[in-house]
Amino acid sequence: MAFEITEELIEQLEFLIEAGDDPRISELLHEVHPADIAEILDELNTDEATHLVKLLDSSTTSEALMELDEDLREELLSNLTPEEIAEELDQLDSDDAVDFLSELSDEIQQQVIGAIEDEEHARHIIEMLRYDENSAGGLMARELVRVRETWTVAGCVQKMRIQAKNVTRVHSVYVVDKREHLIGRLSLKDLLTADTKSKIADIYIPNVDAVNVHDSGEEVARLMQKYDLEAVPVVNDVGVLLGRITIDDIVDFIRDEADKDYQMAAGISEDVEADDTVWELTRARLPWLVLGLVGSLAAVNIMQSFQGALTVHPELFFFTPLVAAVAGNVGVQSSAIIVQGIANDNVTGSPWIRLLKEVSIGLINGVILGILVIAFGVIVGFGWLLSCTVAVAMLSVIIVAALVGTFVPILLHMRGIDPAIATGPFITTSNDIFGILIYFSLAKLILGF
Amino acid sequence: MAFEITEELIEQLEFLIEAGDDPRISELLHEVHPADIAEILDELNTDEATHLVKLLDSSTTSEALMELDEDLREELLSNLTPEEIAEELDQLDSDDAVDFLSELSDEIQQQVIGAIEDEEHARHIIEMLRYDENSAGGLMARELVRVRETWTVAGCVQKMRIQAKNVTRVHSVYVVDKREHLIGRLSLKDLLTADTKSKIADIYIPNVDAVNVHDSGEEVARLMQKYDLEAVPVVNDVGVLLGRITIDDIVDFIRDEADKDYQMAAGISEDVEADDTVWELTRARLPWLVLGLVGSLAAVNIMQSFQGALTVHPELFFFTPLVAAVAGNVGVQSSAIIVQGIANDNVTGSPWIRLLKEVSIGLINGVILGILVIAFGVIVGFGWLLSCTVAVAMLSVIIVAALVGTFVPILLHMRGIDPAIATGPFITTSNDIFGILIYFSLAKLILGF
Repeated sequence: MAFEITEELIEQLEFLIEAGDDPRISELLHEVHPADIAEILDELNTDEATHLVKLLDSSTTSEALMELDEDLREELLSNLTPEEIAEELDQLDSDDAVDFLSELSDEIQQQVIGAIEDEEHARHIIEMLRYDENSAGGLMARELVRVRETWTVAGCVQKMRIQAKNVTRVHSVYVVDKREHLIGRLSLKDLLTADTKSKIADIYIPNVDAVNVHDSGEEVARLMQKYDLEAVPVVNDVGVLLGRITIDDIVDFIRDEADKDYQMAAGISEDVEADDTVWELTRARLPWLVLGLVGSLAAVNIMQSFQGALTVHPELFFFTPLVAAVAGNVGVQSSAIIVQGIANDNVTGSPWIRLLKEVSIGLINGVILGILVIAFGVIVGFGWLLSCTVAVAMLSVIIVAALVGTFVPILLHMRGIDPAIATGPFITTSNDIFGILIYFSLAKLILGF
Repeated sequence: MAFEITEELIEQLEFLIEAGDDPRISELLHEVHPADIAEILDELNTDEATHLVKLLDSSTTSEALMELDEDLREELLSNLTPEEIAEELDQLDSDDAVDFLSELSDEIQQQVIGAIEDEEHARHIIEMLRYDENSAGGLMARELVRVRETWTVAGCVQKMRIQAKNVTRVHSVYVVDKREHLIGRLSLKDLLTADTKSKIADIYIPNVDAVNVHDSGEEVARLMQKYDLEAVPVVNDVGVLLGRITIDDIVDFIRDEADKDYQMAAGISEDVEADDTVWELTRARLPWLVLGLVGSLAAVNIMQSFQGALTVHPELFFFTPLVAAVAGNVGVQSSAIIVQGIANDNVTGSPWIRLLKEVSIGLINGVILGILVIAFGVIVGFGWLLSCTVAVAMLSVIIVAALVGTFVPILLHMRGIDPAIATGPFITTSNDIFGILIYFSLAKLILGF
């Protein structure tokens, strides 16, 4: 059912833009969804894309611009005059307009705001620029439908017709008192099915979940998911209704957070995409690689201090990548489970039970892997003593790695640091060092060198 | 604003359940949201929780049960009679009811369906049990508001009052022709603002995005995100309207998918949570650990074949965990970026350019890390030749690991396999083996042993 963007379409558009056949372009892209227009803009070169943005209706292009990658949007906006940008902003909900604006330089921001025709819209945008991008204030839109408790259903419907024009989607109607305090809500369904003569005061639902304008995006996302809300009103400290956050903004937020956690686990420190430049990708990746390298160099130093083993049991050194890999894998597994548990708020119960649990899991895994190592060692010809030494050391390393992987994220979380940072290279690296140290210390104890 | 579950509340409830003071319990939990009831059930023991489920209104408990962890839900349901389960199901939308049912044994399923009072509801549920859980058919709810194009707005509102009672949330009103084919939609906003005498045929929006009942959940999620849809109608192959999928189901789906990808990247093969049993957690983790071990044992074998180096340059063996770690880290970074790129559909352009890009990034990172290694080696006293050998080998390993990390997911994706499986232990392990092999081969070439 979705509109298909073919190579032919792009070629045809390029040809028409070159030929300057604007009426034909408008006809071709008539009623195409902004999200598809965004994909088309992405396929064209900057000059062609700019031409399209200027040509098409700004109610379409404004939303298309919102869907674009930040880099491309910035590039396109730099080709527009402040007045042209203001025209696009006029079509957007205030939250999207603010996202848009905050990417521009301060100077251009001022010019654009000055050029916005709708004064109320401009005032809303200025107010919202104050809020942190990831707070409820930064996520909310000012556009909503609000009614007074003293109105009748019929009067309410009439007033709503005027308000609803500016609101892209009406989820709920919010009921306020004379001083604009949020006192309840009303669904459109209730309004449709109520007697037109009844008072709003008699039919509204007084229990309404709301978030404070300073709440973090995470808190809002958690609340909306827990209670399956499609929109949530935002109030200030004294309960005055300021705006509302809709689920589609939260979907994007959840996706972004998940992407960020995934990248952090993989050792990527900035939000990058496959199509970013070599330089951006390098900058995102290098810090973690350096951290990993420093850890590995520490491990080299540890091995150097155990080089006495080289003369007696050089085979011990064949197993160091194995010990490091097992420590790393176990640590990453443990921390991933805890990090998700913390994110979903289901890490409960006593830490001692958790400790016991991790040790048990480590013992089971360690014994099974140990048997495999011994079997391998004996078959390949390393002898029982050395094979058992490796197996015992590996078992200890597994338990330590599981404990580090479990409790480092918990400690970070208790100190208010995002535990996701603990997975990936950080845990891998520290477990490499611990692993090698434990391995050689135990081997020295057992084999005596 | 959210309801707070305190230890005192739980203790009080436990006391009241023990004392059998049902009226007081009902009063205490009056108007508490189902999501909070779910959390309370989670804190109580099974007998106490069962008591609550039987006591409270099934319109609350049915939704609370939906929020619970699968294990706990199964346990609670096993304490209820088929009639009691049917009563809970009666309160749920058909999609949730089906999720519920599919967890029960075939025998109990039959008994429960037989006990559902609303025959149409029962028929819907039986029909929906046929669809794959992760397809549009499995995600959709049958409950929706449908109107005929021939109706007037006034007539439509009247009929809707009856239909809307069964629909938890009215997003859109769907317009069908005489043969139940979906022909358009109408927003509640349009209905509110239209003249009551106008015909639906004159005001409905004929362009409506719909999904096929056999489409995958991923496709539905992508479509709904791309077009910012809050509900999407589901049709069969000939266009008959069957149901609708709402954004809250898709939010859960997106979250689950993100969790699964994260776990896969961390080497966890089943969907587990921090609070699962030791056995479940072990089963999810062991397969990847064994895979990693096999790879490491292969690396042991490779080192054994290069043991000639022990007599000439034993220090080479101090660097094997470093080479393996760098190879693993680079591989995971590359694959994470590509896996996300594939998921977000922005891996475009020629594979040769991508190859060139990965090689460039590898060169930059490799040269910087190489300089650090040489500096370390010379300072610690390994000498220029050995330090440079390690650095050159590491540079080659980085480039190979980046290429493996980039192209394995792309190949898997082209063959229809979920590329997320490639990150984590799989890439780490294969890069360990390649890394060690390249390292010693190059060292042999340069140092000659």
